[in-house]
Amino acid sequence: MAVYTDITDQELEAFLEGYDLGAPLAFKGIAEGVENSNFLLETEKGRYILTVYERRVKAEDLPYFLNMLTWLADRGYPSARPIPTRSGATLSSLRGKPAAIVEFLPGLSVRKPTAAHCREAGEGLAWLHLAGEGYPGRRANDLGQAAWSPLFSKHRKAAEDLKPGLSATIDNDLAQLSLMWPRNLPTGTIHADYFPDNVFFQSNGKFAAAIDFYFACDDAYAYDVAVTLNAWCFEADGSFNITAAKALLNGYERRRPLSPIEKEALPILARGAAMRFFLTRLADWGSTPAGALVRPKDPLEYERKLAVHREGLVLFA
Amino acid sequence: MAVYTDITDQELEAFLEGYDLGAPLAFKGIAEGVENSNFLLETEKGRYILTVYERRVKAEDLPYFLNMLTWLADRGYPSARPIPTRSGATLSSLRGKPAAIVEFLPGLSVRKPTAAHCREAGEGLAWLHLAGEGYPGRRANDLGQAAWSPLFSKHRKAAEDLKPGLSATIDNDLAQLSLMWPRNLPTGTIHADYFPDNVFFQSNGKFAAAIDFYFACDDAYAYDVAVTLNAWCFEADGSFNITAAKALLNGYERRRPLSPIEKEALPILARGAAMRFFLTRLADWGSTPAGALVRPKDPLEYERKLAVHREGLVLFA
Repeated sequence: MAVYTDITDQELEAFLEGYDLGAPLAFKGIAEGVENSNFLLETEKGRYILTVYERRVKAEDLPYFLNMLTWLADRGYPSARPIPTRSGATLSSLRGKPAAIVEFLPGLSVRKPTAAHCREAGEGLAWLHLAGEGYPGRRANDLGQAAWSPLFSKHRKAAEDLKPGLSATIDNDLAQLSLMWPRNLPTGTIHADYFPDNVFFQSNGKFAAAIDFYFACDDAYAYDVAVTLNAWCFEADGSFNITAAKALLNGYERRRPLSPIEKEALPILARGAAMRFFLTRLADWGSTPAGALVRPKDPLEYERKLAVHREGLVLFA
Repeated sequence: MAVYTDITDQELEAFLEGYDLGAPLAFKGIAEGVENSNFLLETEKGRYILTVYERRVKAEDLPYFLNMLTWLADRGYPSARPIPTRSGATLSSLRGKPAAIVEFLPGLSVRKPTAAHCREAGEGLAWLHLAGEGYPGRRANDLGQAAWSPLFSKHRKAAEDLKPGLSATIDNDLAQLSLMWPRNLPTGTIHADYFPDNVFFQSNGKFAAAIDFYFACDDAYAYDVAVTLNAWCFEADGSFNITAAKALLNGYERRRPLSPIEKEALPILARGAAMRFFLTRLADWGSTPAGALVRPKDPLEYERKLAVHREGLVLFA
C-alpha cells in the first residue's frame, strides 16, 4: 500500500483547475504501487488515477515515461493514457512534487498466476514490445548488467548478514554474468518490471492492461521476457514451473516470435534478471530502518531464483 | 489509510459467487477508515465498497450497523446501502473475517471545513436523526458517560506521562460530568463519530453522504450534535470557531429544531464529548507499540478541547 502524500480537498481543487476535467466527484487514496502515491479520482469527465511521484523515480525521467504512455495509447496498447493539462503538459506538480493524471484502467491483477494467465501475460508483453517500436524517447537501463557489480559492492555486508558465504557466491555469479552476458540481441523499449501486480486481466482471464512503467528503459526485449519468467513462473516453494514458462513464451511468440539467438540467451538473461532483483531487494533490505512503514521485499526469494538459474534452464527442448 | 487484510483475486471471485453482482472488473484497496479494510470493487453490476471488519468492531454488532444502513437507505438517506448475498444476508465473511459489500457513494470529504460546510454537515446530521427514527435495532453507547471513569482508571498513568498533573484534572472533570450529565434528553439512533472524514460533499459544497456508522448507538441526539461541534468547529490552533458552530447548529435546525433543554445541555454535552474522544485516544496512545503501522491520534488535541469546554461555551445568546 502506498499513500505517502496527503492531498486536501482544497489542494485537489486547485490542482484540477489546470485540467479540463470538470469538478471532482470522488477521490480516494489507493493501495497500488510501492514507489508513488496513487489516488482514484472521479470527475465530471470520467475516472482517472492521480499519481504523485515520490522517491526513486527521477523527475527528469518523467517525460520519458509519460510520453511513452501517450505513445503506447496512441497505438492502441492498453496502458493508461496521460491526461494533458490545459496547456498541453502531461507532467504537472502537486504539493511541490511531480504529479500526473492518467486514465483509469479496469482489470484485476492475479496473485497466483495460472499457466493460462502466463500465456496472456506473455502475449501482452510482446504486444508492448511491438507497440513501443519507434518510440523516440531514450533511457539507459540504470539497473542493467553493468550496474550490478558496483551495486553489490555497496551491500556485500548485508548479503553476508542474510546468509554467511553468500557474498562469494554472488561475486562468482557476477563474474560469470559479465563473461557470458549477451550483447547482440534485438533491443528496444522494455517494461523491465512486468510483475503480476503490474498486469491487469479481464474477468474472463484475458489480458487487459499493463501499468507502472516507471522502470521502463532501453534494453534487450528478451531480457524483459526473462524478468517476466522470473516474476510469473516460480512456485511459492521456489521451484520453477516449466509449464507456466512455456505458456508464457508461447503467448509471447503469438505476437513476436523470438529469434534463435534470443532463445539461446534466455537462460543467462533469466539468471541476470534474478541477480538484478536480488541486488535491489538487498539494497532496500539494508537501507530500511527497523519499524519503517514499508516492509522491504525478501532478497532471499530472488537468491533462491538465482540458485535455480545457476543450474541452467532448459526452456526449448 | 487502512488495508489490513490482503484479498487475492481467487478469494474475491469465490466471495463474489455469493452475490448477484456479476464478475469483478476492478478491485483496489483504499485508504479510508482506520478500523477496517476497505476495497473499491467494480463489477458488471456497478461500483461498491467491500469492507472486511477488523479490530474494535464487534461481530455481534454488525447486524445492527448493516440493518441500520439498509433502514436509512430505504428512507432516502444518503448512506451506503448494503448489498445482500444471494441468500439475502447483508453480513458475509471473507478470510474468516466478517465482511460486507455496500454501495459506492460519490463525494469528497473536506479537510478544513468552512462555515458553509458546517451548515451542510449540520443539516445532514439532523436528516440522519430523523431518518433513523423508528429503527428497531438497539445498541447501548458503550463509550457513553457511564464508561468514562472506568476507562480512565486503566489509563491514568498514560495521562500523567503525557502531561504531569493531568490525571487530577481529568478526575475533576469526570466528577463534574457525572454530576451535571443530562439524562432527560430526546434520544434515538445517533452516528456518534460524525467527523469530517465521515461526511462527503458534492463538488458544489452541498452535503452528499455520511459513511462509517460503526460507532452508531442509542443516545441523546444533542450528544451527537456535541460530538460534531467538537469535530468540525475547532481551529488548528485549538480555538473554538463560534461562527462555524452557529452555522452547524443553524443547518441542523433547518431539519430538526433543538428543544430548549437540548440547547441548554449542549455545553456540558460538548465537554463530555471531548472527554470521550480524549479517553479513547489516550487508550490507543498507551496501547500502540512503538513502530506500529498505524499512528495513534494525539490525545492532547482533545485535552485542549476539554480545556475550552471547561470554561463553558455560549452557543445561544
